[in-house]
Amino acid sequence: MGQVAWKGLFLSLFDYKTEKYVIAKSKKVGILYRVVQLSILAYLVGWVFIVKKGYQDTDTSLQSSVITKLKGVAFTNTSELRERLWDVADYVIPPQGENVFFVMTNLIVTPNQRQATCPESDRIPDALCYKDRDCVAGEAVVAGNGVKTGRCLKDRDSIRGTCEILAWCPVEKRSKPKKPLLASAENFTVYIKNSVRFPKFKFSKMNVLATTNESYLKSCRYSKEHPYCPIFLLGNIVQWAGSDFQEMASEGGVIGIQIEWNCDLDKAPSECNPHYSFSRLDNKFAEKPISSGYNFRFAKYYRDAEGVDYRTLIKAYGIRFDVMVNGKAGKFNIIPTIINIGSGLALMGAGAFFCDLVLLYLIKKSNFYRGKKYEEVKSSSGKSLSSPTLNGNQSPDQLGGL
Amino acid sequence: MGQVAWKGLFLSLFDYKTEKYVIAKSKKVGILYRVVQLSILAYLVGWVFIVKKGYQDTDTSLQSSVITKLKGVAFTNTSELRERLWDVADYVIPPQGENVFFVMTNLIVTPNQRQATCPESDRIPDALCYKDRDCVAGEAVVAGNGVKTGRCLKDRDSIRGTCEILAWCPVEKRSKPKKPLLASAENFTVYIKNSVRFPKFKFSKMNVLATTNESYLKSCRYSKEHPYCPIFLLGNIVQWAGSDFQEMASEGGVIGIQIEWNCDLDKAPSECNPHYSFSRLDNKFAEKPISSGYNFRFAKYYRDAEGVDYRTLIKAYGIRFDVMVNGKAGKFNIIPTIINIGSGLALMGAGAFFCDLVLLYLIKKSNFYRGKKYEEVKSSSGKSLSSPTLNGNQSPDQLGGL
Amino acid sequence: MGQVAWKGLFLSLFDYKTEKYVIAKSKKVGILYRVVQLSILAYLVGWVFIVKKGYQDTDTSLQSSVITKLKGVAFTNTSELRERLWDVADYVIPPQGENVFFVMTNLIVTPNQRQATCPESDRIPDALCYKDRDCVAGEAVVAGNGVKTGRCLKDRDSIRGTCEILAWCPVEKRSKPKKPLLASAENFTVYIKNSVRFPKFKFSKMNVLATTNESYLKSCRYSKEHPYCPIFLLGNIVQWAGSDFQEMASEGGVIGIQIEWNCDLDKAPSECNPHYSFSRLDNKFAEKPISSGYNFRFAKYYRDAEGVDYRTLIKAYGIRFDVMVNGKAGKFNIIPTIINIGSGLALMGAGAFFCDLVLLYLIKKSNFYRGKKYEEVKSSSGKSLSSPTLNGNQSPDQLGGL
Repeated sequence: MGQVAWKGLFLSLFDYKTEKYVIAKSKKVGILYRVVQLSILAYLVGWVFIVKKGYQDTDTSLQSSVITKLKGVAFTNTSELRERLWDVADYVIPPQGENVFFVMTNLIVTPNQRQATCPESDRIPDALCYKDRDCVAGEAVVAGNGVKTGRCLKDRDSIRGTCEILAWCPVEKRSKPKKPLLASAENFTVYIKNSVRFPKFKFSKMNVLATTNESYLKSCRYSKEHPYCPIFLLGNIVQWAGSDFQEMASEGGVIGIQIEWNCDLDKAPSECNPHYSFSRLDNKFAEKPISSGYNFRFAKYYRDAEGVDYRTLIKAYGIRFDVMVNGKAGKFNIIPTIINIGSGLALMGAGAFFCDLVLLYLIKKSNFYRGKKYEEVKSSSGKSLSSPTLNGNQSPDQLGGL
Repeated sequence: MGQVAWKGLFLSLFDYKTEKYVIAKSKKVGILYRVVQLSILAYLVGWVFIVKKGYQDTDTSLQSSVITKLKGVAFTNTSELRERLWDVADYVIPPQGENVFFVMTNLIVTPNQRQATCPESDRIPDALCYKDRDCVAGEAVVAGNGVKTGRCLKDRDSIRGTCEILAWCPVEKRSKPKKPLLASAENFTVYIKNSVRFPKFKFSKMNVLATTNESYLKSCRYSKEHPYCPIFLLGNIVQWAGSDFQEMASEGGVIGIQIEWNCDLDKAPSECNPHYSFSRLDNKFAEKPISSGYNFRFAKYYRDAEGVDYRTLIKAYGIRFDVMVNGKAGKFNIIPTIINIGSGLALMGAGAFFCDLVLLYLIKKSNFYRGKKYEEVKSSSGKSLSSPTLNGNQSPDQLGGL
Repeated sequence: MGQVAWKGLFLSLFDYKTEKYVIAKSKKVGILYRVVQLSILAYLVGWVFIVKKGYQDTDTSLQSSVITKLKGVAFTNTSELRERLWDVADYVIPPQGENVFFVMTNLIVTPNQRQATCPESDRIPDALCYKDRDCVAGEAVVAGNGVKTGRCLKDRDSIRGTCEILAWCPVEKRSKPKKPLLASAENFTVYIKNSVRFPKFKFSKMNVLATTNESYLKSCRYSKEHPYCPIFLLGNIVQWAGSDFQEMASEGGVIGIQIEWNCDLDKAPSECNPHYSFSRLDNKFAEKPISSGYNFRFAKYYRDAEGVDYRTLIKAYGIRFDVMVNGKAGKFNIIPTIINIGSGLALMGAGAFFCDLVLLYLIKKSNFYRGKKYEEVKSSSGKSLSSPTLNGNQSPDQLGGL
């Protein structure tokens, strides 16, 4: 090729090639196509852009820090513990004020346990015995409190007894107060301090409003009227989660406190506010004792003057609160905008494909349009070139046109 | 249809149908189209493939385990606590070495608290009183330490007093050392052992290098020069987070330690290394006492010879460290590669659509090209078949061409 | 324009414009195109719809609550601790039954530590000394237990000694039982209660089956035969994670228990079941003492009759279990269905583009087809209008056709 040819080649690079269209004067398909186009447009504008904010770059990798602080005291007067006041250091476990905290509301105390031998609780099936041979020495009681010593202890006159065990003695007696001991925990408050950070946009925010005065923050309580007050009444939280406080206080349970940050950073930072929601996380509908409620055992260890350890075993029932933070932030960005417009337009192609199917195979004059749309060319000779085939034997296209 | 027709139908299935294009010799639109094509190609190659690694399958569901271990001792000599040495078991709460740990740096100790009656702190507004009637018996002091007994205790000669309460007595006196007690916590070190696993690719890695010798791991300190040393000086962490250690040690606060794993598994495993960053998570800019700092109360319980419980209440100020691990791994996979190429090509269609608009409606000879692009067909008669309409009344297409 | 023209404009809006196709009777390219089409269809149906369930809207923001409860006792008889029974309150740290719990299996006890002066451990290099001057008073021992007093303590006749320190005395002696103390922890069981909630679909489920009877839940053990029993034997968990229990019990380690919920909510809720998997999270292959195992120190504080604090320091080795829950739920939704079909069809366009390249440039008669596909139009005159160029000098299109 000469210089001219190369120049032609180069110039032809900048010829614009555009698809040739056939105008089918079929109002039915035309209207159908417009409807499809409008639907896609509505989806693109309404759903992708307005609802899903497809023009924004989003950041969901939230950095969050939660600090919780409880306030409140409860006074109890039982035969076992006598007059006693419970404050934060007594009933919050663990004390650190992290995002998961437990408020003890009911308890079974077994004081002065020492390493010794004593009869196992008679509620444990594996510890029931008739004679010493039923208690194999050295064997641990299944689901029990200790290791069998080999003796079967019986009350006077009774046939059945319980194995003697080596354990922390005496063992816990299984009866918890029916009325929760710390029923007044309903009036305790929790202050939840949550600060979040969206690293991609270098944006930080706290759930404690900067504008409110200090006395407001000390006296306010979260409610529908005060949606930005970070102090919550425990009773309210449980109620909003759809549970009864006294029942939960007695049996224990887990409450989730969700904090949702959904921030549109194209708006003012003051528009970015947390939304709280509350739900019960343990299955409250369970009727089986094994799967309802929440409790655990812990011990306080002491040492007497002789240097021997003893302990107070506490089976604590109460409400665990899990503060869960999630959120996302969005800000305008050109790349997702272009991608969403592009893929919306690509969807138009799918709409055209669907209308083509209707035009070519479903309407009356489809045979005619098929001939117009598809121009048959043969390379063997010059005949029929550039003249679309209009003959009747187009039917083979019926499948091929797909 | 006979056998011949069926054969024709079958053969026509393998006819290839290709769109017919019109070459518009318009250099303007041609160049525009090439520019659009090049932009899309640049976006596809540069952004999707090189920056975003669109040819990789990614795994973001990281399994991570963090073990932390602090080292360091501090010696204090105060009038209250006298000479005392603090070691890890004293100042780290909780002791388990999980991903969240608290280093106590300042404290208010209230020793020998017993269940008794004593005057409430005079800093609590609700406990101020002039006569016994101001103290309703059995009522809990709002934001206070106990339950009112009904008596108003006054100093000699003074008019105003505070209510007597039933509580852990004596109550805490609110004054914390201005200088943090454990100021030398700055020199404590924390060893952070983090192992991650990407289940999709069955790839595991630790932040402790396998190649380094043991003595290096015992003596190194993380810094820009030693980016893979897993031992951090607390003072450095706070400084890198942009805070002052002594101020934080006095008031408390929360520091986030982010460990980011961003692994390209098409490269060697030794290229997959953690990246550390540090940030202050509680709002340090807050001026309000209620929302700044970090502290909590806990108690150590003792029992005297008579079996009566007493406790030491500790209000602990200090720094909570949250180790947060996130990461993603990518590895070549054919499916995302094809999808990204395909959607890139689909974007080309959107480019052609845009150029069509220019060709058909914006340039001078748009009327002419519109006639060429759109071939009008009518089914009523044979006239004008296969001859594109060139007449002037194409203007109705102006809107319809969209 | 008059009324008629406007009407024409309006009507032409509903003309349907469809792309004109050229039928190339090339069986090679035709078959190629069908293969490409079938591949895309297979990918769309097989991968996108059947494997990835692309017709579903998914929710991955799981709300999860984990409650764990251990059961089991162990009896030990050592010279140091004598006969001792260990129950849940003794060996589980922390006791709350959260998703992370630690089972103590081996320990070094240092009883009766008091604030005093004593020689530092001779295993710490920084504490070795020859004369008093080697021990700078007031300086903390690097990686040691206390602050130097300035004296160098030597055994009789020996040249080298260790610095005297102010510390909790006596210091810990570094020797842990080779055989784990609580080797029988292998037989302890853990009951894991996990309830999940998918907020988008308002769907909740527990891992404890509602249909099973109570006695089954009390006696079953998780295994391949009982995949929905929520009670696990610790020994089994460690074995399934690929580790040896006795080795882990001696040195400590971290085990991850993954609970995966993968729910197809188009099916019955009873089909949505958890899948458990177990893995070792700390690096078990490490040979370096500094990076293997898991242990921490904690202390129990006591007060003697004179009001002086003393403590028992415990270095605890054991197994930390991290229960990690993740999951996703999917439910049929029309929007992702349409989007996936649309983008699948858009992919067809990419296939056609590829086949066009073959047709126009790679096969023998490509020159001829190029002429058919591209119809050259010139606006200067009426000549060559609507008649595709068939001349040989189409070569410039070679590049332009891309």
